[in-house]
Amino acid sequence: MGKRSEIRIVDATMRDGGLVNDFYFTDEFVKALYETNLKTGVDYMEFGYKASKRMFDPNKFGKWKYCDDEDIRKIVGDNKTNLKIAVMADVGRCDFREDFRPRRESPIDMIRVATYIDTIKEAIEMIEYAADKGYEVSCNIMGISRINEDQLHDAMESLYWSSADVVYLVDSYGALYPENTKALMESVKEDAFFSKKQLGIHAHNNLELAFANTLLAHGYGADWMDGTYASMGRGAGNCAMELLLGYMEQKGEKKYHLEPAIPFIDEYMRGLRDQGVVWGTDLQYLVTGFMNQHPRQAIAFTKEGRTDHDRFYKENTDKPLC
Amino acid sequence: MGKRSEIRIVDATMRDGGLVNDFYFTDEFVKALYETNLKTGVDYMEFGYKASKRMFDPNKFGKWKYCDDEDIRKIVGDNKTNLKIAVMADVGRCDFREDFRPRRESPIDMIRVATYIDTIKEAIEMIEYAADKGYEVSCNIMGISRINEDQLHDAMESLYWSSADVVYLVDSYGALYPENTKALMESVKEDAFFSKKQLGIHAHNNLELAFANTLLAHGYGADWMDGTYASMGRGAGNCAMELLLGYMEQKGEKKYHLEPAIPFIDEYMRGLRDQGVVWGTDLQYLVTGFMNQHPRQAIAFTKEGRTDHDRFYKENTDKPLC
Repeated sequence: MGKRSEIRIVDATMRDGGLVNDFYFTDEFVKALYETNLKTGVDYMEFGYKASKRMFDPNKFGKWKYCDDEDIRKIVGDNKTNLKIAVMADVGRCDFREDFRPRRESPIDMIRVATYIDTIKEAIEMIEYAADKGYEVSCNIMGISRINEDQLHDAMESLYWSSADVVYLVDSYGALYPENTKALMESVKEDAFFSKKQLGIHAHNNLELAFANTLLAHGYGADWMDGTYASMGRGAGNCAMELLLGYMEQKGEKKYHLEPAIPFIDEYMRGLRDQGVVWGTDLQYLVTGFMNQHPRQAIAFTKEGRTDHDRFYKENTDKPLC
Repeated sequence: MGKRSEIRIVDATMRDGGLVNDFYFTDEFVKALYETNLKTGVDYMEFGYKASKRMFDPNKFGKWKYCDDEDIRKIVGDNKTNLKIAVMADVGRCDFREDFRPRRESPIDMIRVATYIDTIKEAIEMIEYAADKGYEVSCNIMGISRINEDQLHDAMESLYWSSADVVYLVDSYGALYPENTKALMESVKEDAFFSKKQLGIHAHNNLELAFANTLLAHGYGADWMDGTYASMGRGAGNCAMELLLGYMEQKGEKKYHLEPAIPFIDEYMRGLRDQGVVWGTDLQYLVTGFMNQHPRQAIAFTKEGRTDHDRFYKENTDKPLC
């Protein structure tokens, strides 16, 4: 079914990981991450969100929730490298008409528009705006584990004439089993082919399936894959970048290298954990994963320092609370 | 291709986990595990090994390395339950002619004979001996990630007339990618069908693929699946029992229940960790997984309390040590 596009690995550490530490990464961390990505061969580095400063108080979040061009520029200079820069923008949570400047004035190469299935129309408005400004654009459809194949087909139809280069399946709840990933990919492949969209996968690790689902989605046609170092990301975290890099290297993809990831993880990712930043698999995320629920209850449970998983299970399933 | 056999979930917590704590589980732990397995619906509980007391000094290991009938009996009494009792016996490391008593005198229902591919002949001798004594028997082929399809076919030919009820693929190095699991299962399925062997999968988690490989192997025909609570097992550990239980429950397998696993994990498995017992994924196991190596170097690294993963990577790959 046509020639496969090139593999694209996207580092989402700061964007998805930012959801854990409210985007308070030091410049030293960000520079080290950028240098690491240059060495590991990652294709895109996602710096964070382009969030609305009217909706989200800049006093309450680190600067990577907003990703001002100037802040990115301070890290990457003119970025005369092969590593491209991406940011994410959520439907309904950004001021895209004000904040997306023309690409030729910006260090950003790609804007990833995140949307739930019921706001595809609004997403397309943003996609066209960003494409008009010269950016590469992806449409990242969240909550994919709650979407049936007909809904996905309808979304792909809506996106047919859009300027999105890539359509991502985002398993926000970490609830896809391998067989679901296979079925979704098979159902979306033909639509993607005819509309000339590349496909991407962004997985969460609630059921320890983020890496497996990423490989399976790739096997069934997704050439854009997201990873985060040490799996840092909301709740149970994401597909580990080090796994993705090691796999690609073993498979003979000469662009990618595991080795430079290792000292970065040891110094900087363990550093974040040592500072008390918490992410990763645990029973509360397993429960919301199996229930195919948004992890917000599990995140609240974690933040409160609760350890009564037994009660959490009862609260979040249909089991009686005794 | 014939009717699928029933699903069988085997709890290998004490056997594979025993490799981490030298089989020093308290009777309280073992009783709690047994009670938990009765509630979760697990089919078999593997208590440990039937190891030779001549080769392995009983002063250096807990009693579950030897699994004397009397010790099991102390936990399970007459075991008038649906939970069957299994033990493992390694080719060349047990005194099976002395230590396997007739099944009618023993609390043990199943003997799992563990072998590498080059000792299948010796394994068959043990299998026949155990079957003659009345036990259910499995042949667990270790190091499966280093075996090619021809070798596996030859092994299945050798086992054709044997009394083994089940043949297990054991990913000792945690090195199988999903596509390898699929290929191995597809190559072994016909042999298994014609020789009337059921198939089993025992996965390790070096590359965070233990659960995924277990589900994939099941999808391609393995109805026997091993899990361990909290993934406890050698090195990076195994497929988490709680994931297997939750998955089966969600899929409508009414026999299995996740809920009783949760308080057991919180109290007893976290208890072991709190006592300093160490297992689970980490960069050293990722490296040996990608290199398709036995994890012994990674285990030594862990035991020595080393944290220089960068140097470990160089030592265990063909990269120059600088």
